[in-house]
Amino acid sequence: MTYTVQQIADALGAEAAGDTTLQIDSAAEPGDAGASDLALAMSPKYAEALGSGAARAAILWPDADWQALGLKAAIFVARPRMAMSGVTAMLDTGQWDQAGIHAAAVIDPSAELGEGVSVGPFTVIGARARIGAGSAIGPHCTIGKDAVLGPDARLREMVSIGARATIGARFIAQPGARIGADGFSFVTPEVSGVENVRRTMGDQAGARAQSWLRIHSLGAVTIGDDVEVGANATIDNGTIRDTAIGDGSKLDNLVHVGHNTRVGRDCLLCGQVGISGSVEIGNNVVLGGQVGVVDNIYIGDGAIAAGGSKILSNLPAGRVVMGYPAVRMETHTEIYKAQRRLPRLARDVETLKKAVSKQGSSD
Amino acid sequence: MTYTVQQIADALGAEAAGDTTLQIDSAAEPGDAGASDLALAMSPKYAEALGSGAARAAILWPDADWQALGLKAAIFVARPRMAMSGVTAMLDTGQWDQAGIHAAAVIDPSAELGEGVSVGPFTVIGARARIGAGSAIGPHCTIGKDAVLGPDARLREMVSIGARATIGARFIAQPGARIGADGFSFVTPEVSGVENVRRTMGDQAGARAQSWLRIHSLGAVTIGDDVEVGANATIDNGTIRDTAIGDGSKLDNLVHVGHNTRVGRDCLLCGQVGISGSVEIGNNVVLGGQVGVVDNIYIGDGAIAAGGSKILSNLPAGRVVMGYPAVRMETHTEIYKAQRRLPRLARDVETLKKAVSKQGSSD
Amino acid sequence: MTYTVQQIADALGAEAAGDTTLQIDSAAEPGDAGASDLALAMSPKYAEALGSGAARAAILWPDADWQALGLKAAIFVARPRMAMSGVTAMLDTGQWDQAGIHAAAVIDPSAELGEGVSVGPFTVIGARARIGAGSAIGPHCTIGKDAVLGPDARLREMVSIGARATIGARFIAQPGARIGADGFSFVTPEVSGVENVRRTMGDQAGARAQSWLRIHSLGAVTIGDDVEVGANATIDNGTIRDTAIGDGSKLDNLVHVGHNTRVGRDCLLCGQVGISGSVEIGNNVVLGGQVGVVDNIYIGDGAIAAGGSKILSNLPAGRVVMGYPAVRMETHTEIYKAQRRLPRLARDVETLKKAVSKQGSSD
Repeated sequence: MTYTVQQIADALGAEAAGDTTLQIDSAAEPGDAGASDLALAMSPKYAEALGSGAARAAILWPDADWQALGLKAAIFVARPRMAMSGVTAMLDTGQWDQAGIHAAAVIDPSAELGEGVSVGPFTVIGARARIGAGSAIGPHCTIGKDAVLGPDARLREMVSIGARATIGARFIAQPGARIGADGFSFVTPEVSGVENVRRTMGDQAGARAQSWLRIHSLGAVTIGDDVEVGANATIDNGTIRDTAIGDGSKLDNLVHVGHNTRVGRDCLLCGQVGISGSVEIGNNVVLGGQVGVVDNIYIGDGAIAAGGSKILSNLPAGRVVMGYPAVRMETHTEIYKAQRRLPRLARDVETLKKAVSKQGSSD
Repeated sequence: MTYTVQQIADALGAEAAGDTTLQIDSAAEPGDAGASDLALAMSPKYAEALGSGAARAAILWPDADWQALGLKAAIFVARPRMAMSGVTAMLDTGQWDQAGIHAAAVIDPSAELGEGVSVGPFTVIGARARIGAGSAIGPHCTIGKDAVLGPDARLREMVSIGARATIGARFIAQPGARIGADGFSFVTPEVSGVENVRRTMGDQAGARAQSWLRIHSLGAVTIGDDVEVGANATIDNGTIRDTAIGDGSKLDNLVHVGHNTRVGRDCLLCGQVGISGSVEIGNNVVLGGQVGVVDNIYIGDGAIAAGGSKILSNLPAGRVVMGYPAVRMETHTEIYKAQRRLPRLARDVETLKKAVSKQGSSD
Repeated sequence: MTYTVQQIADALGAEAAGDTTLQIDSAAEPGDAGASDLALAMSPKYAEALGSGAARAAILWPDADWQALGLKAAIFVARPRMAMSGVTAMLDTGQWDQAGIHAAAVIDPSAELGEGVSVGPFTVIGARARIGAGSAIGPHCTIGKDAVLGPDARLREMVSIGARATIGARFIAQPGARIGADGFSFVTPEVSGVENVRRTMGDQAGARAQSWLRIHSLGAVTIGDDVEVGANATIDNGTIRDTAIGDGSKLDNLVHVGHNTRVGRDCLLCGQVGISGSVEIGNNVVLGGQVGVVDNIYIGDGAIAAGGSKILSNLPAGRVVMGYPAVRMETHTEIYKAQRRLPRLARDVETLKKAVSKQGSSD
């Protein structure tokens, strides 16, 4: 697919200058750009490399002197990452060129596929499943019975959609995403050591060894509109009610969301985040990479946790935390600085003890 | 599948009251329950919502006044989660309705499938593999050559069972579980920086840059009876002997078990737990979410680690730990409280230094 | 496959003694070894168990008295793990016995497969993809359009290779590895709370709730020679330039490498390591299990991080770190010891305060 510089500028709602009829078929870093690439040089720092590439057109910062940079055309943007969203969407050539239903897909006769749905080879679609119009289902996917997928879904290869899952519009799933695994829920016939430890904060209280009985997941997963789930991420079915992900939330690779948990709207869960069961997460929450969240707590709207934080208790709305256990970021910084000084502090106390002892004895 | 209230009570070994011939086809939370649902209201707190639902039957706590709650029938249980196990098992409608061997499965002629085994589309079963009677193998699975799977296995879609794996009865694997990946085992021709750091606790001792040579995994994985492995979890082959998981142990999503490690009976490894190679884990051990275990240590029977703990040394039986590095939970709590007070402690010491200095000079 | 003791010794470049014509078909631990197994007893500790097995041949340490151990033949090695690499490579019987292109693979007519390539059932190979000679592509793999795979690749089942990926010689991918998922890259129309927190170190500065716009990944993944990627590990596509993994680097199971990140040569990334986007990692870097690396930093050549470390800032070459946040290992040890003594230190300060107060009042 090829666009003129003007078409790209119009799509971004941005100003353009120079020969805006130049044809663009790809984007590149300034030093790597060829004649039909749009160089991405949104700050003077990046523009320096334009000379070592062959770009004729670039995206620049407002009021940049494009002619002095040796360009034939330029687009000017104020918020570079926003421009990146628009330009990468236009120039994305996608993963496959599939069309229609591949002959090697196995689709239950009772499944309903909307207009323009494409299905890759070796995909299995179960009884009564419904796939919204315009969706592209990649190769090797499994879509369970009674699952509902909204319009314009994009499923990469080997994605699992469990039975009875309900998913909104424009869903994106990366390879190996698992929607609707069974929840991890077990019970012992008598009170277990874990239950005692939770009650006593550390004492098993003599619980004897027992085997685990399985609690099946009768619930499923409900996902809103505009959600994206990363490669090999997993979202478990609820026990009775559905596990839920709100509109606009994005889950990165290898994220785990436990059974019954509810994630609100427009949240970002970064790589390898792990959320236990029955957690309530508000809207616009951002959890950095490898954050962990203990079960049965809530995290208020707009809370932010730095990468690696382990959240062990409720967080109020807007709270910014870090650490294990996670505390306010400024508290963490204060504790951390004091820790670095701890060995010196210990030496100071030793010195003081001797001084006081000497003074005491000299009294 | 439909049951009467009496049938469910009998299965749970529980008392029932009222019109126990009422037909039940599903379970629901009290506020969501319809006329053919069994409402789960095992405590007075949950029972409050019965009024906003349409349940005619519910599971309640012992001696609950079911008639006052507007019900037509009730079942009474003392340990709610135990009842959940029984009732969810009865009412689980499963992921597929598959029967028999799908025409699009590829099964080696030398493989042996027991009576009543079903195999989903696009599953591959290797030479001499044996599948126990009553097993249901989902779509897109790969079962390696010489693998043995006990009776009544339940494999969701896209499960890998490596060559020569040996698995007991009633095995459950969630989507994308990987049994029998190769171990992560490499060696450098000369002593490496990592080996020196381990020996010296921090000093690379001038080791030079080298490339890594692969140690192949000749061992496989041995798994006992009644084991469940979560979505996208991975268990590596042993180097010479098998990596082993004992009877009754349950592994959650995205758990990693390294080569040669042996996990005992009835352990729970929660979401994203990572266990290095050559670890010996006893029976009834519970590791919370995101726990990490360093290689070549042992963890005694009944030990419990809170979520996020990093276990860097041997744990005796029954020990309850938390933190990084993991220490006794009460030690962790004590250290943590002291840390919170650290900035104040530092100020106290500063004040003391001034006071002592002044006293010293006034002597 | 069977070898004589002499053939194995020659392959290892090691000395052998006794009846070196003995036939070996497998390796075993000393206590488990049968008559055609090579027992691995590279230290006197392991050799003790030879008596309880039936081994006739073993690998021993230099100058071991093999006849006194009751053996008929022996091989002597100085660096046991190096010998393990050679002997396990020889005796590995592999995962499948596949040959040729399976009839149930779907291969685009424009794809180019080198000499001797085998392709398992249900694998999909896209337009213009090129597979190097001698490669074995397992079942259920997806190889995207325009992807290039070097000679002698070994792909286990259900591996994803994204469109436009470029991979060198002798690539090994464990089951469920995902090369070329889309990067996790989103932007809000206006400055977000996360951006403010990063700038202010903890203050959201009143950012309002917004939805996330997607930045597509136009880049792909470039991987060097002799790289191995573990089960269910994920490597994301770059935004514009490719995400890159250097020659000889090994990634364990469930490792995550974010978009634009560049990993150098001969690195080891152990189980569940998570690397954010735009990280620059040098050569010969070793990251222990569950290490996390924040985005946009660099890690110098030969740096080593202990398991569980969270690396939040640049690391110079050769640095050995531990902790959250990661600090020099000796600093971590010093801080940790001081922490363990913290409760006592706090009591000492209380005592001092009383003593000083008393001395002050008695002046």
